[in-house]
Amino acid sequence: MSDTSLDDIDLFFKARSVAIYGASATPNSVGQSIVQNFIKPQYTGKVYGVNPKYSSVLGVPCYPSLQEIPDPIDMVIVAVPAQLTPRVFKDIAKKKTKAAIVVSGGFSETGPKGAALENEIVEIAKKNGVRIIGPNCVGVIDTQTHIDTFFLPEHRCGRPRPSNVANISLVSQSGAFAAAIADWTAELGLGISKIISLGNKSDVDDDDLLCYLSDDSSTQVICYYTEGYDPLQGRSFFNTAKTVTPNKPILVVKSGRGERAKEAASSHTGSLAGSDRVADAAYKQAGIIRAENFEYMFDMAKALAMQPPAKGDRVLMVTNGGGLGVMATDAIEVLGLAIPPPSSNLKEKLQERLPPYCALRNPIDVVGDGDSQRYDAVFEETISSDEYDIFVVGMLLQTPSLGMDITNHIANYSRQSGKPFVVISMGGGFTTKAGEIMELMGVPTYATGEKGALAAWALAKYGEIRYGKDFRKTADFDKS
Amino acid sequence: MSDTSLDDIDLFFKARSVAIYGASATPNSVGQSIVQNFIKPQYTGKVYGVNPKYSSVLGVPCYPSLQEIPDPIDMVIVAVPAQLTPRVFKDIAKKKTKAAIVVSGGFSETGPKGAALENEIVEIAKKNGVRIIGPNCVGVIDTQTHIDTFFLPEHRCGRPRPSNVANISLVSQSGAFAAAIADWTAELGLGISKIISLGNKSDVDDDDLLCYLSDDSSTQVICYYTEGYDPLQGRSFFNTAKTVTPNKPILVVKSGRGERAKEAASSHTGSLAGSDRVADAAYKQAGIIRAENFEYMFDMAKALAMQPPAKGDRVLMVTNGGGLGVMATDAIEVLGLAIPPPSSNLKEKLQERLPPYCALRNPIDVVGDGDSQRYDAVFEETISSDEYDIFVVGMLLQTPSLGMDITNHIANYSRQSGKPFVVISMGGGFTTKAGEIMELMGVPTYATGEKGALAAWALAKYGEIRYGKDFRKTADFDKS
Repeated sequence: MSDTSLDDIDLFFKARSVAIYGASATPNSVGQSIVQNFIKPQYTGKVYGVNPKYSSVLGVPCYPSLQEIPDPIDMVIVAVPAQLTPRVFKDIAKKKTKAAIVVSGGFSETGPKGAALENEIVEIAKKNGVRIIGPNCVGVIDTQTHIDTFFLPEHRCGRPRPSNVANISLVSQSGAFAAAIADWTAELGLGISKIISLGNKSDVDDDDLLCYLSDDSSTQVICYYTEGYDPLQGRSFFNTAKTVTPNKPILVVKSGRGERAKEAASSHTGSLAGSDRVADAAYKQAGIIRAENFEYMFDMAKALAMQPPAKGDRVLMVTNGGGLGVMATDAIEVLGLAIPPPSSNLKEKLQERLPPYCALRNPIDVVGDGDSQRYDAVFEETISSDEYDIFVVGMLLQTPSLGMDITNHIANYSRQSGKPFVVISMGGGFTTKAGEIMELMGVPTYATGEKGALAAWALAKYGEIRYGKDFRKTADFDKS
Repeated sequence: MSDTSLDDIDLFFKARSVAIYGASATPNSVGQSIVQNFIKPQYTGKVYGVNPKYSSVLGVPCYPSLQEIPDPIDMVIVAVPAQLTPRVFKDIAKKKTKAAIVVSGGFSETGPKGAALENEIVEIAKKNGVRIIGPNCVGVIDTQTHIDTFFLPEHRCGRPRPSNVANISLVSQSGAFAAAIADWTAELGLGISKIISLGNKSDVDDDDLLCYLSDDSSTQVICYYTEGYDPLQGRSFFNTAKTVTPNKPILVVKSGRGERAKEAASSHTGSLAGSDRVADAAYKQAGIIRAENFEYMFDMAKALAMQPPAKGDRVLMVTNGGGLGVMATDAIEVLGLAIPPPSSNLKEKLQERLPPYCALRNPIDVVGDGDSQRYDAVFEETISSDEYDIFVVGMLLQTPSLGMDITNHIANYSRQSGKPFVVISMGGGFTTKAGEIMELMGVPTYATGEKGALAAWALAKYGEIRYGKDFRKTADFDKS
């Protein structure tokens, strides 16, 4: 343990010195991949290997045991066969290291023998105040400190980056998913702060990380993938969640709706999936938003990370494409949000500023030859009217009459209004780039009407969770 | 009309000579954009402009009227203000041209005055055997003949390409959607044969195109976006569809589920959205698969274009990631497909060929260190067992133990088995490229478990539509 003490969970993300148990000179081995992560210049802490076979691995000094390392060690990463781990944990205890990530498999997920081994290391750890992530996991990525125990080569598994706007942290029970999501979000350009793979949750569980991430200033939205809860762990998780959700959104994807999936989950991480309906009710009570799948979760998380929650559920849609207006309002209505038409007073004001062939319903259609001035007119009048809580902006860029200045205009009104904005922009190359620009300016942008509608719903749903009775609810947006 | 006669609808896709009414020298104008499309070297027919102001536009010879063009004209594209169109149609009639795409707006979608104009041109056209696409549309893209009336510049609106494997054609009521989808599918790498924007459907309607596309050898799957049907047009469309669907899949996205969207649709293309439930029932009866949105439609269309329909609903999932197995089988089960465990006989065979820590349920988990030989063992045994109708293959490439040879292996088994295969591969850069390679070999690949499950469902659903009573149905896969 180092001098300035770090909170126990903090060590997993901020360790200033790490030792890799099972560091290996064998190319592509787990023990080598992890060493490779820590010798990247971005990681500024100290790195050691533990393996009696080597005196150094990739230039990293290697020792037969932790004891012999001349420095204090904040965190140990354990990548040795399961049957060796009890010995390793005795070594960890002697070294007074307080954090261990066990990436090895062969524990409770394989049956009673493995479960016994798992109990053995947990007991040693508990007696000595050592926290464990895993076993049977890929560990932790922190995009700021560059702690990275994912033993997957970067050319196969890209690493996400933090964003200047807002960041998401993800806790995943499944290691393969944690890796696939790291790789996926690296491409998506979503700002990621931390990804944690929990594996068998022998010690550190969803609740521990929730407590930690709720206070983590670099995490704006907390996401979970879970296959189920241990009843006791589940209870404490939901109790904590209740206190967190008014301040920070929590989203979850939970598998195991079907019987088949429940079985698979139990063989995968030894989880008891339990009743899915019970989980659903608990999510609702705790203010956790459940997403049907990862895509939806990240679509919602992006909106919640970038935009303020809505103070009511009245959506205005403005678009330059009629079909997009139809599709998006359709989806918004199916999700139960309100789409009130502009009042006659507001309509008059809009009529003065827009050509007569623009449709002044909701959606407001500035039509195919619309430019950013028409959007301006709509934003100015509708924002000052205070008739709407959420703005959904259809931006079809296939037509050259809409210049790229529209991106600045939308970003400005979004900031000025203090109300949440969501952009829908369908298309290919040019459109994709424009969407990336919108998001660099903090406005979440989606490729389809349904995704945009879902983002609006999440902003309203989380507004209700945050503002409770002060949330203006005019429609039954919880029906879906 | 040319010498070798083309079927009337054929002219819209194969015109060997076109005249652009309203060809213009003004940069970025509609009349110029269309000329630009036809002077690309890919279009091998003859091009003329009609505009008394010019003798040539971008090097294309321009005449004051159609009459003066020295060649026969297969198709006219009309891009002049609505009030001039009756005169244009008299000119078309005299020239004996039989196909006209009217891209101009200002007709029935704007009210009674516009409707009167629309009636006027339709009457002239009917009397003289001229077929009309539009008005209020962007017309037609044919990726093989390079007929392209989309008046949107290519840097803003990419153009899709045909694929060597199989192609989709899309009929869209909305022009903006047709453009956005052209642009989107250009990026997706989906093989597209034709995109048709119907606009006000004053003459050529969904049914005409269905008759045409059902016989079109370059279209393997027919997709529609519609906001509603005219009762009469609707009836003939559904009657035709009934005869088409046993031979070619038809997918549809129909908006207008909500009240708000119905209103917007009526102001957009003058459609009567009608009861959504009635449409739903009609889709079912006609064997048309309704998708909730464009993403789902293209996900399903890709599978149906690339793979044979399933002869039953028994899905086998094989994966190297436990979490992915859980998520995907969850989604498959929610969609109501059967996921039977392997028989004890099959299990024994698998046990002989796989390490003991592989899970031999359904999903079969060849686990994180699985290589293509393990997949081979699963494919060989499960295909020859004949216990399954659809194969869903989870392929997580973050782990280096799975080499790129897996793509060839999957493609080979897919071809040999004669049964539909679907791949799920989540991740970023490397994974995306591998997915593109899979699809070049004809196996549809998806980024999430849910999308893969939906693809499997579509293959089963269409199998049921095609094989009727011979389809093996063990579960209620129609419940969703």
